Amino acid sequence: MAGPLPSWTDGAAKSAILDFVARVTKEGGPDFVPPPERIATFDNDGTLWCEQPIQVQLFFLIDRVKELAAKDPSLNERQPYKALLEHDMKTLHGLGKQALFELAFATHAGMTEDEFDAIAQAWFTKAKHPKFGRLFKENIYRPQVELLGFLRDNGFKTYIVSGGGIDLIRAFAEEAYGIPREQVVGSSVKLRFEMGDSSAALLKLSELNSFDDREVKPANIGLHIGRRPILAFGNSDGDLAMLRYCKTGKGARLSLLIHHDDAEREVAYDREFRLSPLAEALDKADAYGITVVSMKKDWKTVFAPAQAPGQRGAA
Amino acid sequence: MAGPLPSWTDGAAKSAILDFVARVTKEGGPDFVPPPERIATFDNDGTLWCEQPIQVQLFFLIDRVKELAAKDPSLNERQPYKALLEHDMKTLHGLGKQALFELAFATHAGMTEDEFDAIAQAWFTKAKHPKFGRLFKENIYRPQVELLGFLRDNGFKTYIVSGGGIDLIRAFAEEAYGIPREQVVGSSVKLRFEMGDSSAALLKLSELNSFDDREVKPANIGLHIGRRPILAFGNSDGDLAMLRYCKTGKGARLSLLIHHDDAEREVAYDREFRLSPLAEALDKADAYGITVVSMKKDWKTVFAPAQAPGQRGAA
Repeated sequence: MAGPLPSWTDGAAKSAILDFVARVTKEGGPDFVPPPERIATFDNDGTLWCEQPIQVQLFFLIDRVKELAAKDPSLNERQPYKALLEHDMKTLHGLGKQALFELAFATHAGMTEDEFDAIAQAWFTKAKHPKFGRLFKENIYRPQVELLGFLRDNGFKTYIVSGGGIDLIRAFAEEAYGIPREQVVGSSVKLRFEMGDSSAALLKLSELNSFDDREVKPANIGLHIGRRPILAFGNSDGDLAMLRYCKTGKGARLSLLIHHDDAEREVAYDREFRLSPLAEALDKADAYGITVVSMKKDWKTVFAPAQAPGQRGAA
Repeated sequence: MAGPLPSWTDGAAKSAILDFVARVTKEGGPDFVPPPERIATFDNDGTLWCEQPIQVQLFFLIDRVKELAAKDPSLNERQPYKALLEHDMKTLHGLGKQALFELAFATHAGMTEDEFDAIAQAWFTKAKHPKFGRLFKENIYRPQVELLGFLRDNGFKTYIVSGGGIDLIRAFAEEAYGIPREQVVGSSVKLRFEMGDSSAALLKLSELNSFDDREVKPANIGLHIGRRPILAFGNSDGDLAMLRYCKTGKGARLSLLIHHDDAEREVAYDREFRLSPLAEALDKADAYGITVVSMKKDWKTVFAPAQAPGQRGAA
């Protein structure tokens, strides 16, 4: 059985995807979209990989704070470092996503882009999810990896548009998803170009450039891509602006929303996840024409195999 | 005679390009660069098309100010509008590039991205260069169009990294250069996402997001591309940071600089062009390992034919 999307259960969501791709690729058809306009944008945390109990960016932050605390033990008693070091999820959730992510970005200030990339790449080879016991980069969703490949096979350019730090995602997205660095849009700090006599580098500053969430996602799509996506995929209210930006464009459009309703194979959550709630997008999905994907019903398999087949290549 | 780069004269510059591309594409060779890392960045004004007597962005501004002056005649007597409306090049040059470009961006505030794109596309079908009498989009350099295609044929991804407004360039770059909208980096204003009941749009604001010149070029390359280019091409001191960012990377790198020394076929200028001078980059090209391209000696033909062959396609 060699059909597309083998990890997707036959049903409304899979049919919506297959039907949409058939229509926009049918030359001469009423919904045909020329290849350069076939832009697909995917949120990352909770859409392409697991974001529970906290986003991977924050586990990366915890390891960074551990290093800092080894030099400055006072951090062990100071918030929010204390909550991070103790994996105090309740306190962390209460701080809010942007505050925590900005803290994470601030701890990288002063590094060059290359230094950060080396640290992130090394971290991904050893850092494991506390519950699943797998490397974080193995916590990616197999149905989504199939979907990304299926879209590219049909002439789409696939992008990540994430609230996560753009550099952290770039350090693993090419290997994990086949999405090249230049097709990653994310939160970012300002960069300063430093030129020596025979070397040059981009230095990460502490000042935020953009926090790529909610209404900022479409704005960053405008800046980085300059085209309105024809397919967009998210899983929280933070993605709603992007899903509606996609869906309200002219012609055939498909906006999809994952509902994490699978306590057995992953985690069941929506509106109570304070770092990235799903409430309005779920309540109004019907009204907005957004297709809801049930992790439990629509996915035969959730996670990619421990040794994912090479996903690198054209994107 | 079907060799590559037919509009380039055989000589040091053409040899440097052919040799570089041969080395980085030779599998197993010491300078081999995998295709995903083959990033080439080109300045636009003066590098891919003519920027004299002023940049095309400013001709576009003049036509916009004419429209505004029709409604508000007081602009005819107020600077800098007066200088624009009278094509007073001396005054315009004295104002400086960033001030003029920011003025241009400010006149587009309140438009949606789609509205701006429609205006720009319409303008390019009729606006002509005052000296050459051709459409501006026909003022592109044929040797560069050949080079962009040659690089893409060899697995490069070609980018524009320009001080010009990102949206104005996107309105013609795909047709003119075969460079898709998402591979254009430029100066930009902030965008605001506006959501109605059944429509959504990105609104251009008056606030500058970034002026993509000098040290900002490498920083924007970091943000948009996330890889250091292995080939970079410019023509002014505004490109020097990008040329050095490229050239100081590890492995084989090629940075090129056009010298406009051809008064007969185009315009001869360098350090005296106040809007975008070429001085330090020319003086230190040797020391920095930058290959200088003489328009007069290295290009057999300067401009693309009036009816350029379709340049659209993979990039």
